[in-house]
Amino acid sequence: MRVEIITVGDEVISGHIVDTNAAFLAHTAFSLGAEVTRVVSVGDEVEVIAGALREAMKRADLVLVTGGLGPTPDDLTPQAAADALDRGLILHSGYLETIKEKFRRWNLKFTPSDERQAFVPEGAEPLPNPIGLCGFKLEEEGKSIFFFPGVPRELAKIVERSLLPFLREKMQGGKEIVRASLLKVFGPTEAGVKEFLQGIEGDFELAYLPSFPEIRLRLVVRGADDEEVEARHQRYEGKISERLGIYLFGKGDEVMEGVVGRLLKEKGATISVAESCTGGLVAHRITEIPGSSDYFLQGVVVYSNQAKEKLLGVPHSTLERFGPVSRETAELMAKGVREQSRTTLGIATTGIVGPTGGTPKTPVGRVFIAIAAEDMIEIKKYDFFGDRHQVKLMTSEVALDRVRRYLMGHSSRSAGE
Amino acid sequence: MRVEIITVGDEVISGHIVDTNAAFLAHTAFSLGAEVTRVVSVGDEVEVIAGALREAMKRADLVLVTGGLGPTPDDLTPQAAADALDRGLILHSGYLETIKEKFRRWNLKFTPSDERQAFVPEGAEPLPNPIGLCGFKLEEEGKSIFFFPGVPRELAKIVERSLLPFLREKMQGGKEIVRASLLKVFGPTEAGVKEFLQGIEGDFELAYLPSFPEIRLRLVVRGADDEEVEARHQRYEGKISERLGIYLFGKGDEVMEGVVGRLLKEKGATISVAESCTGGLVAHRITEIPGSSDYFLQGVVVYSNQAKEKLLGVPHSTLERFGPVSRETAELMAKGVREQSRTTLGIATTGIVGPTGGTPKTPVGRVFIAIAAEDMIEIKKYDFFGDRHQVKLMTSEVALDRVRRYLMGHSSRSAGE
Repeated sequence: MRVEIITVGDEVISGHIVDTNAAFLAHTAFSLGAEVTRVVSVGDEVEVIAGALREAMKRADLVLVTGGLGPTPDDLTPQAAADALDRGLILHSGYLETIKEKFRRWNLKFTPSDERQAFVPEGAEPLPNPIGLCGFKLEEEGKSIFFFPGVPRELAKIVERSLLPFLREKMQGGKEIVRASLLKVFGPTEAGVKEFLQGIEGDFELAYLPSFPEIRLRLVVRGADDEEVEARHQRYEGKISERLGIYLFGKGDEVMEGVVGRLLKEKGATISVAESCTGGLVAHRITEIPGSSDYFLQGVVVYSNQAKEKLLGVPHSTLERFGPVSRETAELMAKGVREQSRTTLGIATTGIVGPTGGTPKTPVGRVFIAIAAEDMIEIKKYDFFGDRHQVKLMTSEVALDRVRRYLMGHSSRSAGE
Repeated sequence: MRVEIITVGDEVISGHIVDTNAAFLAHTAFSLGAEVTRVVSVGDEVEVIAGALREAMKRADLVLVTGGLGPTPDDLTPQAAADALDRGLILHSGYLETIKEKFRRWNLKFTPSDERQAFVPEGAEPLPNPIGLCGFKLEEEGKSIFFFPGVPRELAKIVERSLLPFLREKMQGGKEIVRASLLKVFGPTEAGVKEFLQGIEGDFELAYLPSFPEIRLRLVVRGADDEEVEARHQRYEGKISERLGIYLFGKGDEVMEGVVGRLLKEKGATISVAESCTGGLVAHRITEIPGSSDYFLQGVVVYSNQAKEKLLGVPHSTLERFGPVSRETAELMAKGVREQSRTTLGIATTGIVGPTGGTPKTPVGRVFIAIAAEDMIEIKKYDFFGDRHQVKLMTSEVALDRVRRYLMGHSSRSAGE
């Protein structure tokens, strides 16, 4: 099944927002084996939207549209859909009732402009949207068009209840079987990954998707027979995983901080963090994972020297003699936070994230990361490239990755010294 | 000038990455007054890319393409461009030399597959790319097509050196004058903002761009005369700003944490944070701002009760009697971190971010935020909606916004009690 996506909104084509909806819809369709062939974004103009719809319907079997369904005058998608399909725009009474009832439940005042949202092209079938108001589906010449709201949270809910069951049903009847997986790598460059995988060839597709600071590999296997495709997918995924070794940290929706959390749980270990240059980002990432309070006990963000002394017991003389960005300070920070919080592991980051603050001796990008356990302390020096945000992100990634390697019993082979 | 953007890559249409390049290019063009009319994303197929190029060239005066310029076999944009424009694909010797020289400078081994990147359509003019390798421009029938790499950091650099000067020159010759600004609002809902602005009418465009948890307003004024457009833009921006009052926290590229930082600097004030439910996010946001070490001294992430006792001196009895998610605990956390770090302000967050951990008495989304100053303590209770990430983000936003309001001398009028 060929799928095209249309996102509607001046905010998208003017670049004022990043179009996460397109990625979400594409990923949803793709993961169920549908083939997304094109994503088009257009502004809030009836004729342009209608034109994009007509073109997409020529090429695709399924068209997914987001945006332009709200109550304001620049929400023009229903009108455009009516024009493109040569249908009337009608007030849908059932839809209107649903909207009114939701307004009552949410204690909102229903105004005439809200009625606008109940106007849909003739033949439209409203989609269930538990948290918002709008969304409908049209059928034309055996093809389906879904119209979704542009608010990402509403989109997610409505897709779960309408598009997912639709696609599952359609794809079961399809001929081509597709198995796809996403492999997540941290450490080598894209060229380095390619070198690792040299010589692995066969009937599969492999795409490189750099996603700073990680590299993601999308492996797709297609065929006619379910079991054969499954076996082939497993075989190639196994080969690739073996070559990547410790650099492969996760699959699918797994994220670095989630993998670290799972390993900590498995080992019954706990962790604390002392952050200078990452400014809270390591703790923030760890605590994005549900249930992280089981293993994450505390963090300190010691931006000032005084805080390093008072909160972590780093001696004034160490800071004076070696400086806050030094092997010695990183070591005492990691040890200090670990002892203070009585965790299995303590990690520390200190560095210059820029844009100012660098010196010839300690340039912007210079970072020390330390990991302390009961019988181990490991401090490494790094020189990272990029802007303030990138250096923070890279530092947090390396810190988490080193915890992962330690918990897996691998010695560190990352770029630092 | 009508601009269309084409982003190339299976990773985009499969939804494995979010297309930030399109937004970046659109924003760049838009902010210089060019009209972006369409964004199209296609996969790594020569014919599809060539088809998208041909269509775009029919409609637009300027086409911006990203992606598909790398060294691997799925990088097909140069071939597609050659096909679309009916030109040959040639090895560009000057380009090859530049690539080789960069490899030498970076101590990378030049392999035959890297030569691939020096093949461009006949007549292509290489673009300066200080940190990467590829990028070129083609002219056809008075129209221009820029081909950029897909790596966002490289794209930013190359756009700065090639597209920006190009657009500036072209747009100066244009007839229409455009003034655009972005107003950033936090507090009211989209409908609430509309109510504030009711009755303001005239010759301007205003788009609502919800960007959780904020609402952004894009104001555009067009006309033929520079001074008149400027004056009209100022007039409407003034009217809108006046109505929005304290809810308008910033303009353009300003972010909440940047505004807070600026105000702290202006007042010569310092800040410390004690985070439970936000898990480091408030500190991370504050330290994203260059120069934040001037006013941000320290943060603690007290996920465990023990950490709340030990690091902040919250009495065991308080945690026992009122619980960690309570007005009383929030108050003592804010006071504790402020006293310990001797900052002008201390802020604290404690709550249930979910998905588990909620009780009938303290449901998921319940959050207390406290701000302490020398002569002031203000604690408020909130019930936020959303998933773990959204509750963390909303909590951090409200905490920062309340610091902003306090520093501006406004009493808090946010939703908490």
